[in-house]
Amino acid sequence: SKQSSRSIDFSNRGMTLEEELNKSNLYYLNHGTAVIHKKPTPIQIVSVDYPKRSAARINEAYFRRSSTTDYNGVYRGRYIDFDAKETKNKTSFPLKNFHKHQVEHMRQCLRQQGICFAVIKFVSDQSVFVLKASDLIDYWDKQALGGRKSIPRKFIEKAGFLVPYRINPRLPYLQAVDSIID
Amino acid sequence: SKQSSRSIDFSNRGMTLEEELNKSNLYYLNHGTAVIHKKPTPIQIVSVDYPKRSAARINEAYFRRSSTTDYNGVYRGRYIDFDAKETKNKTSFPLKNFHKHQVEHMRQCLRQQGICFAVIKFVSDQSVFVLKASDLIDYWDKQALGGRKSIPRKFIEKAGFLVPYRINPRLPYLQAVDSIID
Ligand SMILES: [Mg+2]
Ligand SMILES: [Mg+2]
Repeated sequence: SKQSSRSIDFSNRGMTLEEELNKSNLYYLNHGTAVIHKKPTPIQIVSVDYPKRSAARINEAYFRRSSTTDYNGVYRGRYIDFDAKETKNKTSFPLKNFHKHQVEHMRQCLRQQGICFAVIKFVSDQSVFVLKASDLIDYWDKQALGGRKSIPRKFIEKAGFLVPYRINPRLPYLQAVDSIID
Repeated sequence: SKQSSRSIDFSNRGMTLEEELNKSNLYYLNHGTAVIHKKPTPIQIVSVDYPKRSAARINEAYFRRSSTTDYNGVYRGRYIDFDAKETKNKTSFPLKNFHKHQVEHMRQCLRQQGICFAVIKFVSDQSVFVLKASDLIDYWDKQALGGRKSIPRKFIEKAGFLVPYRINPRLPYLQAVDSIID
């Protein structure tokens, strides 16, 4: 109905794609559908205090760049591996949103028959797509040969899978994963 | 030969089980055998500085307890999930080495047909075993019903899989995983 769709839009305002995915993963976990978690942010720890009567305190640390994707887990017996990326661009998704290591990681997982993909959100109109890693890698590799530095939204709409917002799970992206598996 | 076995023993001295597994996983990754990584340590960040000309610096943070296991990835198309534990005990493995959340996570992964297990090292004689999560969970659940607080080493030797030290990979634990899958 019109009302429920308006209230969904409202509740999405200000929520990042990661928060939406984390909530969806918690729904999937609680319903026994899948076990998929976001990995902790990798940190380079430089200095730690161990006070006598309280918890160890990290005094100096730095963010490290992850060498893998952010999310992985298991669904229908399959290894699931993906990264989530938002863009403010309206007509294309810039490849610079991915690091070389992340793409290499996806390539390695595909070789082991993992189910790998990107979840891409165009924040301008709040549309979310699942794009297979193989499609992403195609564009990535062509870029090195002088190809374009972004994936056209038209291509993502055609080759990818639109993930419609729902109440619960907020982003039912495993429906798209079903299409990749089957 | 005697010489190579002596040099293996020497190089293992002082290496933790996690370091041995990380090295083995790197070997497996570089040989296209499997993609298995240790997850970053989860950190609760309290305060961060963003200096103008240098990297963001974390000034206050604390270690959080992980709600999952330490290692996961993909091998032979299967989802792999495990934790690594060392014990100084000689005749049994104390169940208190596991947190409730880790065991629940293993239970959830098994329901999704993941391949879950523990890698257990008896540091006294440097023996390493792969023990299926289902065996671990049996002991865990019996403990709550008044059962023993540890798994006898004799049981681990019988139900688990010994992982012999090698040059490369140092801990060829995927051979035990083959036995679990097949
Ligand atoms: Mg990301
Ligand atoms: Mg551990």
